[in-house]
Amino acid sequence: GERECGEKSGEEWVAIESDSSNVLKRPDLHRMMETTAQKLRLMGGTVELVDIGEQELPNGQTLALPKVVTATFGTDPNKHTVCVYGHVDVQPAKLEDGWATDPYNLTDINGNLYGRGASDNKAPVLAWIHAVEAYQALSMELPVNVKFVIEGMEETGSNGLDAMILAQRDTFFSDVDYIIISDCGWLSRRPALTYGTRGNCYFFAEVEGPKQDLHSGVYGGTVIEPMTDLIGILDTLISPSGKILIPGIREAVAPLSDEEWKMYQDIQFDMDSYKNKIGVTQLMYSNKVDLLAHMWRYPTVSVHGIEGAFSDSGSKTVIPAKVTAKFSIRQVPNMDPAMVKKQVTDYLHSVFAKRKSPNKLKVTMVIGAKPWLADTQHPLYEAGKAAVKRVFDMDPDLIREGGTIPIARTFQDVTGKSIIMMPIGGFDDGLHSQNEKMSRYNYIEGTKLFIAYLNEVSQIKKTSV
Amino acid sequence: GERECGEKSGEEWVAIESDSSNVLKRPDLHRMMETTAQKLRLMGGTVELVDIGEQELPNGQTLALPKVVTATFGTDPNKHTVCVYGHVDVQPAKLEDGWATDPYNLTDINGNLYGRGASDNKAPVLAWIHAVEAYQALSMELPVNVKFVIEGMEETGSNGLDAMILAQRDTFFSDVDYIIISDCGWLSRRPALTYGTRGNCYFFAEVEGPKQDLHSGVYGGTVIEPMTDLIGILDTLISPSGKILIPGIREAVAPLSDEEWKMYQDIQFDMDSYKNKIGVTQLMYSNKVDLLAHMWRYPTVSVHGIEGAFSDSGSKTVIPAKVTAKFSIRQVPNMDPAMVKKQVTDYLHSVFAKRKSPNKLKVTMVIGAKPWLADTQHPLYEAGKAAVKRVFDMDPDLIREGGTIPIARTFQDVTGKSIIMMPIGGFDDGLHSQNEKMSRYNYIEGTKLFIAYLNEVSQIKKTSV
Repeated sequence: GERECGEKSGEEWVAIESDSSNVLKRPDLHRMMETTAQKLRLMGGTVELVDIGEQELPNGQTLALPKVVTATFGTDPNKHTVCVYGHVDVQPAKLEDGWATDPYNLTDINGNLYGRGASDNKAPVLAWIHAVEAYQALSMELPVNVKFVIEGMEETGSNGLDAMILAQRDTFFSDVDYIIISDCGWLSRRPALTYGTRGNCYFFAEVEGPKQDLHSGVYGGTVIEPMTDLIGILDTLISPSGKILIPGIREAVAPLSDEEWKMYQDIQFDMDSYKNKIGVTQLMYSNKVDLLAHMWRYPTVSVHGIEGAFSDSGSKTVIPAKVTAKFSIRQVPNMDPAMVKKQVTDYLHSVFAKRKSPNKLKVTMVIGAKPWLADTQHPLYEAGKAAVKRVFDMDPDLIREGGTIPIARTFQDVTGKSIIMMPIGGFDDGLHSQNEKMSRYNYIEGTKLFIAYLNEVSQIKKTSV
Repeated sequence: GERECGEKSGEEWVAIESDSSNVLKRPDLHRMMETTAQKLRLMGGTVELVDIGEQELPNGQTLALPKVVTATFGTDPNKHTVCVYGHVDVQPAKLEDGWATDPYNLTDINGNLYGRGASDNKAPVLAWIHAVEAYQALSMELPVNVKFVIEGMEETGSNGLDAMILAQRDTFFSDVDYIIISDCGWLSRRPALTYGTRGNCYFFAEVEGPKQDLHSGVYGGTVIEPMTDLIGILDTLISPSGKILIPGIREAVAPLSDEEWKMYQDIQFDMDSYKNKIGVTQLMYSNKVDLLAHMWRYPTVSVHGIEGAFSDSGSKTVIPAKVTAKFSIRQVPNMDPAMVKKQVTDYLHSVFAKRKSPNKLKVTMVIGAKPWLADTQHPLYEAGKAAVKRVFDMDPDLIREGGTIPIARTFQDVTGKSIIMMPIGGFDDGLHSQNEKMSRYNYIEGTKLFIAYLNEVSQIKKTSV
């Protein structure tokens, strides 16, 4: 049955440590793409593993990118053609980060399936596959042609995918009418359709001083320490109350309209349950509209960590010679990553210059992903509302996503096609953190939603495309 | 011969990864103590492996401390008795930190022996052993009774050693006249005697927020991030020009006397070669006296790193839930670690309170080691000067040590015996950093110095003890 079949694939897929940020795991990632392609081949799809070239590593070496899997089910010109986008690479995960179970061994606890990538994005990709399988198992013709484009570099910025989409714009993508993305989650227990995402500019700020690490007893007091400089400049990015201090960033943000304010006010969102979920006593904003707005449509700065400093447990008396901070700024309309890159770089260099340090600062932007916004009145969204109504017997929340799904923006810019984001992940799935999971409920009902959605899309009038 | 024998022991000792800060390496550390004991037993010493109990880990578990090795060569009551202190544990080291060679495979490159612990402190301990062996090989009676006390927890604060010294004050240490420590290095190519060391207060500042790591896209903007808080408080410890900002710290420092100023002025110290050695274009101070004073007799703050944040290469879009900064403040007369603990804790909590963050701050002092200062006119130092003159045909520099050798202070306080620090490490040995080494020249001439020094000490008048 669907249940057993879905679980078996889920186990097999989660067991592959397809961490795209770790170059040592690249063979696993290649295996993940091949496994995905093979699954689609066995279902009778026309499948290709598209070579998208190599990536250059910071040390100058090159490494083969994971191939992109494309698949086609049906080519009837009288039907609409949808293209489902998904990714099968994952964020890093280690048991010692605080996982209750082995992150690469899908584990069922009380109806939740725990494992890295379970929700982001392996189960949603499998749910789409199961939707096609369901039509096949019932010997029903697919109501629309279904294409898949599955990549393996999403977690590190979809390296190579933009060029592939551009290259295949007039071939694989030429007959595609709609793009569907299910790489996000609900806001509450209520199903949702997502009409916007934030972009992300990810920065490395490297401060380099002595030619090698030094003993802090022997040298402390005589050298200007790179860590002190780095902390000094990081402390100028954002105020304790969340105000971004980099000139020009806040000025670029589109103002919140009264309509938007009203819409946010009407969304079902429980502040207390949100607080409980993340385990904090106080949020950055104490009212719903401010909080949702800062989650979805305002930029923010997060400092992720520092490479090159002492990061293990225990005590080490070292002056690190070269330290690299990793931080990112979420992007919203009307920010422009190229402008943000310049604003951040100029600002940090000016702040650093005031320190009169002999150390060297290097600021690089390693990801520059634009935000995306859709029209919720489009027939694609009306079809989505109808499918949700059919499966869940309720109206969906119309929400935005704080995270970045940069490929939405690329699809829009390159193919000119309309896009819908139709999440099936739970609001508490723990993406990118410890104990990521997908509930059986969301996995199974989500599959039903996709089955119903294909049917709804088939009823969109061809003229309204 | 001495050369081959010394090299063989050096290889064997460096091959043991006796990292005392890594609890997973504790079996290697136990093996290191046993290897040391066995070496001394085979030389005919009276050897004991002294059980010093357990340490408590931050998670509440306990772990057996490495035993302390004591050894006695000769008990003639008509002779002086010296006790050589050393340690055979090492700092962490990984090839990927930037070592040119495997840190645990002693490698000879152009007369330098590279390996973790080569200079700090395995070769100096072996040189003392070779000094005794030299008398034995020549069938000469030792001119003084020689004792050894060798520990395995120096790099993490000599856990358990203070209590052991106190416990054996009236037994093993009762007939000891002088303590000799060779756990430091020269200032230049000129041999040196060391008459002072800085202490160290090592702090953990932990900021804890959400109950687990969060996706920075999904949650960024809604939570008060622990990393932002931690960076904010770390940035208040020290100014860009090296001024410590914690109230009370600078006020406690003994003023620099005119005599001291004159003495520093006369020390042979090449600022340009110091800059070249560490690879910087500018130091914290541009004149010799200020620089030496801030290296030896003023406190300083070093931030070593942050545990719990993202520290690998690549990019991860995480909001770390709990982050712990590691920083330390070097101690000089007349600072008091107990007072420093209070000053730092109170200050950080007051700075943190101003942020009005809901996150929790915990400040702990994990090491609190006092500074140490000796009288350079003492017969022990006169004997040192004579031994240097004999082996190197020059007068030693009288220097201080920026690093911490806390056990000197304990020996002084508990046994009341006089102490001398007689380094043989080179000024460029890279302690605690990548590519640590000991030169063959310093290893061999250092062994000769120790042989000569035992002879010089035997000539100190008994009354002057």
